[in-house]
Amino acid sequence: MALKLPFLQVDVFTNTPFKGNPVAVINCMNIDESLLSDKQLQAIANWTNLSETTFLFKPTTDGCDYKLRIFTPMCELPFAGHPTIGSCKAFLQFTGQKTAKSLKQECKSGIVNLTISSEGKISFKAPRADIEEIPQDVINEYRKILQIDCVAAPKLLDVGPIWVVYLTSDAESCYNANPDFAQMAIINNKYGHGGIILAGKKPGSSQDYEMRAFVPADGVQEDPVCGSGSIALIRYLQDLHNFTETTEVNITQGGRLTRQGEIFCQIKGNADGAFSYISGGNATIVIEGSINI
Amino acid sequence: MALKLPFLQVDVFTNTPFKGNPVAVINCMNIDESLLSDKQLQAIANWTNLSETTFLFKPTTDGCDYKLRIFTPMCELPFAGHPTIGSCKAFLQFTGQKTAKSLKQECKSGIVNLTISSEGKISFKAPRADIEEIPQDVINEYRKILQIDCVAAPKLLDVGPIWVVYLTSDAESCYNANPDFAQMAIINNKYGHGGIILAGKKPGSSQDYEMRAFVPADGVQEDPVCGSGSIALIRYLQDLHNFTETTEVNITQGGRLTRQGEIFCQIKGNADGAFSYISGGNATIVIEGSINI
Repeated sequence: MALKLPFLQVDVFTNTPFKGNPVAVINCMNIDESLLSDKQLQAIANWTNLSETTFLFKPTTDGCDYKLRIFTPMCELPFAGHPTIGSCKAFLQFTGQKTAKSLKQECKSGIVNLTISSEGKISFKAPRADIEEIPQDVINEYRKILQIDCVAAPKLLDVGPIWVVYLTSDAESCYNANPDFAQMAIINNKYGHGGIILAGKKPGSSQDYEMRAFVPADGVQEDPVCGSGSIALIRYLQDLHNFTETTEVNITQGGRLTRQGEIFCQIKGNADGAFSYISGGNATIVIEGSINI
Repeated sequence: MALKLPFLQVDVFTNTPFKGNPVAVINCMNIDESLLSDKQLQAIANWTNLSETTFLFKPTTDGCDYKLRIFTPMCELPFAGHPTIGSCKAFLQFTGQKTAKSLKQECKSGIVNLTISSEGKISFKAPRADIEEIPQDVINEYRKILQIDCVAAPKLLDVGPIWVVYLTSDAESCYNANPDFAQMAIINNKYGHGGIILAGKKPGSSQDYEMRAFVPADGVQEDPVCGSGSIALIRYLQDLHNFTETTEVNITQGGRLTRQGEIFCQIKGNADGAFSYISGGNATIVIEGSINI
């Protein structure tokens, strides 16, 4: 059956078109989910060639605003950061909501809480952020292909995607790094690591970072602006610094790819002494129209 | 200055959405070309992440219908096949033309003649198709990474992009080939070859081929359906078979990538004894709307 559905392509972590990370969002809220097979959703995401294409469906859980399904060109993901923010922006546009302050997104990894600031910034609370040690000999292998020293022990962060977080001496050394991507793909695959988050602190700042995200094993040398990577970084920083109070972390990313992404993060102390990891940013609608399926 | 321009994303070499090769086309015919800098055009094409994004401008040459500028995520191209067909389809849609039988496209490589069949197939005459020998030791290197025998000497085809055309024993062996892409990128770069066109004849057919196009040195292991590759193949076949009459060559491509592209080619004998190389196919509009620049 031929379908014409509302389509938006949203630029995430920026207010300026073409400076962030794009996601294609298709509004399927007015059709039954069974009308589109998994194979069709995958074929569409393969064809758009974006890192992620998402589909908004009617929620199936009470209290949720929509159900989101997220596809890369190769597979479905349980959760992803920038597609969540871009899809929320699209949901607000599709439904004409102008005053929502919080939303609940249903997705394969569970329910994700979203907040919308009065200036329109969209933030999500990470559904998970687990941290693990990395053996020293593996760290040594990464040191060799990154060709840059780390200033604290790199760790493995499972935030949905699995990232190695590698902290350099400062923002400049992070920005200038020229890793060996072919070797990185081999090592990532060898240990089952998704990719590498490289980050360096901005001199004179309290907790502002330049960040880069490499996923050569997935065929993407460098991701322009990465939501799950920002969660991995702030969880790593909490492990490193043991902040006792709510801490803001501002991240810039994408400069080497002509982007200018800005990610606004928060390590938020809860009443029970645990911490929540929050990532957010602006988003702007670049392409608006419909898609013929 | 913020601009909102008409946008189409067209699927080329198919009538079925998501089965061909996409191109994004932006209608700039109602603005002055100087309003958009080369840097902006490049930034847009980098952001869409498609193999090509094109921009239709008012023609600057008498008798041409439009001027086309073609960008990959990394650079501007003088000419490209599937973007030419997709952009022609978009031009017809943008301008509401329903009866045009031929059009002239101005682009960096010159003027390209397009024809539109009564069923809507769009074909272009190749602006160039030069053929050269490849030294035997280089052929041996390609044999090793393709892991499949050729049935005639591979040649180098300059059709804008520079392709090595490598003919296998039949369609099946072409379809099943699993080349070593990392090594292919190294060899392509070493000799300045753009990529490899692999093709095998369909048993029992007169001149029907399965084709595949590999461009790992550009970060694209396999292109789904390739217009310039089809020109390279038919020029190669003319060199091999010395057809004395106009010959139709039908090509299928993209099956390994879940696509089902169909390219309809013609080696056309001219009155002066020379030959023209023509490639064409269907195209279908998948995304329609506008883009905010």
